[in-house]
Amino acid sequence: MSEKKSVGIVKTETWTFARPPERLKLRCGEELGPIDVAYETYGELNEEGDNAILICHALTGDAHVAGKNSPEDRKPGWWDLMVGPGKPIDTKTYFVICSNCLGGCQGTTGPASINPETNEPYGLDFPMVTVEDMVKVQHALVTRHLGVKKLLSVIGGSFGGMQVLQWAIDYPQMITSALPIASSARLSAQAIAFDEVGRQSIYSDPNWNDGDYYDSEPPHRGLAVARMVGHITYLSDRSMREKFGRSLQDRKTVGYDFGPPDFQVESYLRYQGDSFVRRFDANSYLYMTKAMDYFDLSENHGSLIEAFEFVDSSFLVLSFTGDWLFPTYQSQDIVRALHANAVPASFCEIESDYGHDVFLLDHPALNRTISGFLSQVYTTVGESDAS
Amino acid sequence: MSEKKSVGIVKTETWTFARPPERLKLRCGEELGPIDVAYETYGELNEEGDNAILICHALTGDAHVAGKNSPEDRKPGWWDLMVGPGKPIDTKTYFVICSNCLGGCQGTTGPASINPETNEPYGLDFPMVTVEDMVKVQHALVTRHLGVKKLLSVIGGSFGGMQVLQWAIDYPQMITSALPIASSARLSAQAIAFDEVGRQSIYSDPNWNDGDYYDSEPPHRGLAVARMVGHITYLSDRSMREKFGRSLQDRKTVGYDFGPPDFQVESYLRYQGDSFVRRFDANSYLYMTKAMDYFDLSENHGSLIEAFEFVDSSFLVLSFTGDWLFPTYQSQDIVRALHANAVPASFCEIESDYGHDVFLLDHPALNRTISGFLSQVYTTVGESDAS
Repeated sequence: MSEKKSVGIVKTETWTFARPPERLKLRCGEELGPIDVAYETYGELNEEGDNAILICHALTGDAHVAGKNSPEDRKPGWWDLMVGPGKPIDTKTYFVICSNCLGGCQGTTGPASINPETNEPYGLDFPMVTVEDMVKVQHALVTRHLGVKKLLSVIGGSFGGMQVLQWAIDYPQMITSALPIASSARLSAQAIAFDEVGRQSIYSDPNWNDGDYYDSEPPHRGLAVARMVGHITYLSDRSMREKFGRSLQDRKTVGYDFGPPDFQVESYLRYQGDSFVRRFDANSYLYMTKAMDYFDLSENHGSLIEAFEFVDSSFLVLSFTGDWLFPTYQSQDIVRALHANAVPASFCEIESDYGHDVFLLDHPALNRTISGFLSQVYTTVGESDAS
Repeated sequence: MSEKKSVGIVKTETWTFARPPERLKLRCGEELGPIDVAYETYGELNEEGDNAILICHALTGDAHVAGKNSPEDRKPGWWDLMVGPGKPIDTKTYFVICSNCLGGCQGTTGPASINPETNEPYGLDFPMVTVEDMVKVQHALVTRHLGVKKLLSVIGGSFGGMQVLQWAIDYPQMITSALPIASSARLSAQAIAFDEVGRQSIYSDPNWNDGDYYDSEPPHRGLAVARMVGHITYLSDRSMREKFGRSLQDRKTVGYDFGPPDFQVESYLRYQGDSFVRRFDANSYLYMTKAMDYFDLSENHGSLIEAFEFVDSSFLVLSFTGDWLFPTYQSQDIVRALHANAVPASFCEIESDYGHDVFLLDHPALNRTISGFLSQVYTTVGESDAS
């Protein structure tokens, strides 16, 4: 195995499209433009142009997948374990792309961006964006700006996996393979319920002010509670038991008060909430969770089997045993519908009791499975190029 | 099987104790008094005084278990399916008691009650109360006020089951049998985390005002969000899928906005939140969740086995397959520790994928198991009385 290295220092770039008179037509019926797209790339596109991989980020992710944006950064990008020289998505071999989703708040146009019609932030005047719209923007970036004609693979976990499925449906000729991880063709009622709790928590914060808070105190308390509840759903009973159990936080006995946290798990959650509000916009949280709730390939196409009718990529569908937010049965539904269309689709349920977020951890079986699948797809592409 | 009837119209009674100079010593070190205890009883105490059953309510329950308080009531008490003439806890045979927990808000002294030292509601001056304290109050009611010398059984689900365990430990000679349902000897990290989310949601509501809101608008929005997240944990992925799935609420397509709920599950949650705030006090929610978080028989006694050392009751421990808030392994921990002390303890995991709240539903296996256990215990008591 070659040495694993970081991609080093990378810069988040911005590409702007849908400038007047062009505008992007959205699924909700509205139009939007201009649109900034924040993205990063790692590695080099080869001469054949057949080594490009698009990574789609999860609900609150961003374009910064790997490396650091500056030497002072405390942490590398969100999937640095997976992407880099010698890593499972090996940037010595592949040209890796990731962009911030439409509606996000980390460089791509979203509700916090300036509405050119008012010169004020959009707030709730931002149109509702769907996974289809996000994928349309990614497609524009990849083809028009980066000049990639075909993607070797589109990969993403959770909400990112939904984007992967959408890519396979909307641009079947453009992607050789698809790798949705811990994902779903439609969000469950329970997951919608948790999203709704997060949104209600934001709505309930008087600072939210119907989304109009960019000149005042943002609704940090509501957003922090939304993040806390989300965070519990990314972990599992077992991972929380093993990580925290009932250990107390800097104290020998419980406090019998409502002051500092009694338990480590409370302190951890408060920290997660507090750090999240420093990097995320509450309105973006509303838009992204709505896009996730609305995603439903069966509804949009009649049935999941019909949704995959024109798919022309090979699939690797991954799930985790301990994931209760996007349970394995949802990945199996995807695989069954692909097989009904004779789409080559492998399915692997990876043993892990650590919940939904496992795809972000260093999991040897996950690493091997992803790197093996990509090698195989890349070899096949090379052979068909040569033939 | 005899006909199932309602207990009819019942009145919630109040008994007051710990009047000056008496005060109740609490586990936190503080003292409290006077204490009102709201309670209801159904059926008659028999001459032998051996047919009394105490029911302990769950986190947000109250003393009103069965029947209606007035003919106009839309709904009967919270366990009307279980308690009544001909029902599993048959009031033709048993004398059934239930009281509102200390710290509650449905008639028993809690943070919304008047603090005699200030003539204002306690608010956060109310001392932290624990399951031990709640059980102490129940014991006072049962022995001093109702004149019951020994309880045939103490029964409760969830937080009520914690009270059952505490009864068996603190008053081993006073209870013939114990029936904890979907309960735990100590709350899991995940459940503490959900409780903390609920509390943070209340703290975040500016109307909460550090618990001082009895003369102003109460923190209804924060409390509603707390209830919503709690409610999800009482159900299950499957029950929510079967009950709501992705059905839309009074509309044919999603709204692409942040207005009325898109999905039925969202509408249901909003309704749960809204109706809860009409009957529950936010401060009580804080105190009750803290009491639940703090409950830890292992911590309080060295180990769970030591906790049960002097237990002298027969046990029936029940859990549900689909309960992820108080999972079966927690009931099994209780049973193992009881068996290590040679306590007669039966364990039954009831098949149901409907989550934690199953004990409140009409579940034939649950009904049979409870009525059978009680009959057997009652017969044994009768035989030993006769001998």
